[in-house]
Amino acid sequence: MGSAKAADRLIYLALGGAGEIGMNAYVYGYGTPGQERLIVVDLGVTFPDMDTTPGVDLILPDIAWLIERKSQIEAIFITHAHEDHIGAIGHFWESLGAPVYARPFTANIARRKLAEHGQPENVVTVVEPYPQMIDCGPFQVSYLPISHSIPESAGLLIDTPDGRVLHSGDFKIDLTPGVGDPFSAALWEEVSKSGVKALVCDSTNVFSHVPGRSEATIAEPIAELMKDAGGMVVATTFASNIARLRTLAHAAVAAGRSVCLLGRSMRRMVDAATEVGLLTDFPSTISPEDALDVPRENLMLLVTGSQGERRAASAQLANGKYLGLSLKEGDMFLFSSKTIPGNERGVIRIMNQLSELGVDVIDDAQGAYHVSGHANRPDLETLHQIVKPQILIPMHGEHRHLREHVKLGAASGLSGIVAVNGMMIDLSGNQATVAEYIETGRRYVDGSVQVGQFDGIVRNRIRMALNGQIIITLILDENDEPLGDPWCEVSGLAETGQSNASLVEVIEEDLSQFLGRAKPKTLRDDVALEKELKSIARRSAQAEIGKKPEVIVIVSRLA
Amino acid sequence: MGSAKAADRLIYLALGGAGEIGMNAYVYGYGTPGQERLIVVDLGVTFPDMDTTPGVDLILPDIAWLIERKSQIEAIFITHAHEDHIGAIGHFWESLGAPVYARPFTANIARRKLAEHGQPENVVTVVEPYPQMIDCGPFQVSYLPISHSIPESAGLLIDTPDGRVLHSGDFKIDLTPGVGDPFSAALWEEVSKSGVKALVCDSTNVFSHVPGRSEATIAEPIAELMKDAGGMVVATTFASNIARLRTLAHAAVAAGRSVCLLGRSMRRMVDAATEVGLLTDFPSTISPEDALDVPRENLMLLVTGSQGERRAASAQLANGKYLGLSLKEGDMFLFSSKTIPGNERGVIRIMNQLSELGVDVIDDAQGAYHVSGHANRPDLETLHQIVKPQILIPMHGEHRHLREHVKLGAASGLSGIVAVNGMMIDLSGNQATVAEYIETGRRYVDGSVQVGQFDGIVRNRIRMALNGQIIITLILDENDEPLGDPWCEVSGLAETGQSNASLVEVIEEDLSQFLGRAKPKTLRDDVALEKELKSIARRSAQAEIGKKPEVIVIVSRLA
Repeated sequence: MGSAKAADRLIYLALGGAGEIGMNAYVYGYGTPGQERLIVVDLGVTFPDMDTTPGVDLILPDIAWLIERKSQIEAIFITHAHEDHIGAIGHFWESLGAPVYARPFTANIARRKLAEHGQPENVVTVVEPYPQMIDCGPFQVSYLPISHSIPESAGLLIDTPDGRVLHSGDFKIDLTPGVGDPFSAALWEEVSKSGVKALVCDSTNVFSHVPGRSEATIAEPIAELMKDAGGMVVATTFASNIARLRTLAHAAVAAGRSVCLLGRSMRRMVDAATEVGLLTDFPSTISPEDALDVPRENLMLLVTGSQGERRAASAQLANGKYLGLSLKEGDMFLFSSKTIPGNERGVIRIMNQLSELGVDVIDDAQGAYHVSGHANRPDLETLHQIVKPQILIPMHGEHRHLREHVKLGAASGLSGIVAVNGMMIDLSGNQATVAEYIETGRRYVDGSVQVGQFDGIVRNRIRMALNGQIIITLILDENDEPLGDPWCEVSGLAETGQSNASLVEVIEEDLSQFLGRAKPKTLRDDVALEKELKSIARRSAQAEIGKKPEVIVIVSRLA
Repeated sequence: MGSAKAADRLIYLALGGAGEIGMNAYVYGYGTPGQERLIVVDLGVTFPDMDTTPGVDLILPDIAWLIERKSQIEAIFITHAHEDHIGAIGHFWESLGAPVYARPFTANIARRKLAEHGQPENVVTVVEPYPQMIDCGPFQVSYLPISHSIPESAGLLIDTPDGRVLHSGDFKIDLTPGVGDPFSAALWEEVSKSGVKALVCDSTNVFSHVPGRSEATIAEPIAELMKDAGGMVVATTFASNIARLRTLAHAAVAAGRSVCLLGRSMRRMVDAATEVGLLTDFPSTISPEDALDVPRENLMLLVTGSQGERRAASAQLANGKYLGLSLKEGDMFLFSSKTIPGNERGVIRIMNQLSELGVDVIDDAQGAYHVSGHANRPDLETLHQIVKPQILIPMHGEHRHLREHVKLGAASGLSGIVAVNGMMIDLSGNQATVAEYIETGRRYVDGSVQVGQFDGIVRNRIRMALNGQIIITLILDENDEPLGDPWCEVSGLAETGQSNASLVEVIEEDLSQFLGRAKPKTLRDDVALEKELKSIARRSAQAEIGKKPEVIVIVSRLA
């Protein structure tokens, strides 16, 4: 590299959210290559599963690249208060140290999260939507209200010396969203008319071919359902879907039912929405204790756990009693929600438990009691046509969504690029080009610490779970002679195998025989000894029970 | 109990398949209570998952009750060759020892499975369908051909001294199934006209409200898709869906493509269907080696792995090369299948890998390229109306399916009962009553052995995976004094915690401190010592990393 100053450039970089649905974290930069001034859009989390991340509590994007450039960060913008956009703010704020901007409801949630992590709440500035602009270094940013399944969701207008970028945020086209902002074609036309360099756009529902439906369309079916219900009614949805909570609560009250909120996040979200003045007409709710005194045909519980989460209120109710409340024959349980792919088993388990109790389970199989918060394919086309960007950058999607979204744009003449996590895009010219590949990945919150995706820790857990484990302990005396027999313990393995003898005894016998004939050289060499013992134990287990367990060898030498 | 001979009774008992979708195993009995002569219908398996059964290879119903009554068993009837109906025949035949009956294709598969387990193949008798009757003790049984997603599926007519029972088997109402028997209303009317005591009926699709579609409806969309494809085409479906394989293969040939089968079960199923004369017009296929020489636009691969199975051909192709074949930009991959709930993650992983390769993935989101093999709600009503049973016993469903199916029957005046695994139903009277509760459950095939569901083995694996593990070894000398310091190894845990020191060292230090002040009484007592060491290690881990790991303590005493 020479010393000539390179031309300034405009960059886009996803550190999370592009190539997956979850843990959104996007970066825009402007300036001399390598020294760009940066803004961060969203800091989200994603959730672990038993298949790939057993025992993990939460998954964060690996933002090491960003942390190394702390001094270059002008601001952090949070588009809305869903966990996959805001969930990591408490974990990361200290490492980034930049001012945080958000609309009132989102700011309320952000402050709670910062407080939980012992971070200062006053770093969050509440913003007014467009036309208010926020100056931050080379950028001017404005919040563009847009409809989604949580109040005050926003896209971002990002003005740069190289032109205007529109970042859609999560959105749907809903003219009657109940709570929160309706989609305004006029607003998006206005901010697009002077020309848009890039539209960075939600891709979640690109495979849904019919136009999306409004939140308003489900009010009547839900009201009908509630009217016809005999026993207790329980309804679950994402706690952050304030419009849905309102619809459900109003339907309950209209049917002569008192409303009781169950689940910490349910109460927290309603509190937050009320505090910022979004929920002026939410019915007054009763406590779980008071609910016990209400006849079941006059009660509706609004509960957490629409995704089958094991510790949420819905799972507890399905299991039996929760805070004294229990379900029985003739009650109704409404899933006013869609099951996120991967959560099916948990949701189905709850449905069957409820069925065993005699509860009528209503889910969204018929599409009557839930609408998606994301723009379907025709709605994406609508936004493309309004914005008419020079370049389309799909985000918020797995690889297949991003690729399909680029194809969708191409079909109407839009130039697009599949930009996955870590692929830094240079937007300076007329075309989007790949500037660099940045190392990205995941960090696991595990108990009270963070571990890396490739530290081998979680891999070891998976191996123990798949293969079981043998622990061999051996004591050698001062002359490197075995002191007694080797000792073997197993965990997660059958007790007896082909020979009908105890697996532990068979392995111990095989190990003893080996030690009886082992050369002094081997007995003196920890590495060689461990390797042999491991291999013998695995061979014995394979012969006895047809499995090759993980083996831990502990050799103690009496000095 | 007195010595008076109780009246003979007719019983129905599900040992698997009622309260779950999978591992079907049903028993009918007739005779003196406790000494009934028995027939077995189906012996299926179900599949493990990481959430509940990590490391397990296969799940079998626990048929201990049946094995204890080996001498009472007259016969085993297999309705069709799906794994959840036939998969356990090789594992169980030796313990049951009764003759096995099946139609030719099913018998072919049953014999292969028996041979694999070293069991005699000649215990399988090939049956002709109705009106041929099989005499077995108090029962006369006949096979009623019925359409399903595998050839030669059958319901069973079971005549007993107490009346006729119809066991639907897995079925759909398909008048043009391509391969195998069309549904014959005339046949089911004929066997029903003299009166049916009980209809034991498939419940899988009771929540699907539209009438089922015929296999024939997807031939044209698949042909169109194949015609328009540019590069290589890969299609996946269940290998046992012979009609689908034929549809896919014919569409490929019509589009000028050679067909290559990939995956062991794909070849095995086509072989079986050909051997029994079901597939007279299947196109000749080429080997994977020959496929390498065919231009990609003239090739179609028919592959296993429609459910995202990690080792199947589809996963291998998505990962890179398989038998020299690899996919690239412009190729097409068709999932002519539905993802079974719980398999979403695996299927989606493959779809994204294919997307990264530039392959166009077509799935059944639009319903054009797959039809279900099970009767939808209106089709169930059709069978109810044809059979008009005295009692409806839903089977082949989770609790919610069985319950809904009873409600569906009740809506048109049918009396029904939710009879889950282990609930023995007495059908002797005019009403179905619960006679007894039998202990049922699951057995896990784990490597080369079987382990019980509640043996604690799999539970230990799950605990190791969720919590990680600490192994503590301590040597005590002849005077019960610690010989050196305790030794600690961890697996599946973060290396450092809150204090930024090595987790292992922190725990070892805490253990050493305890040992330094421990009373001789404690040091002499293995149980007390182990309990203390465990508790200290867990407390240290909780303080350092916020987790409470599994702890194994190994105390060695020098005698």
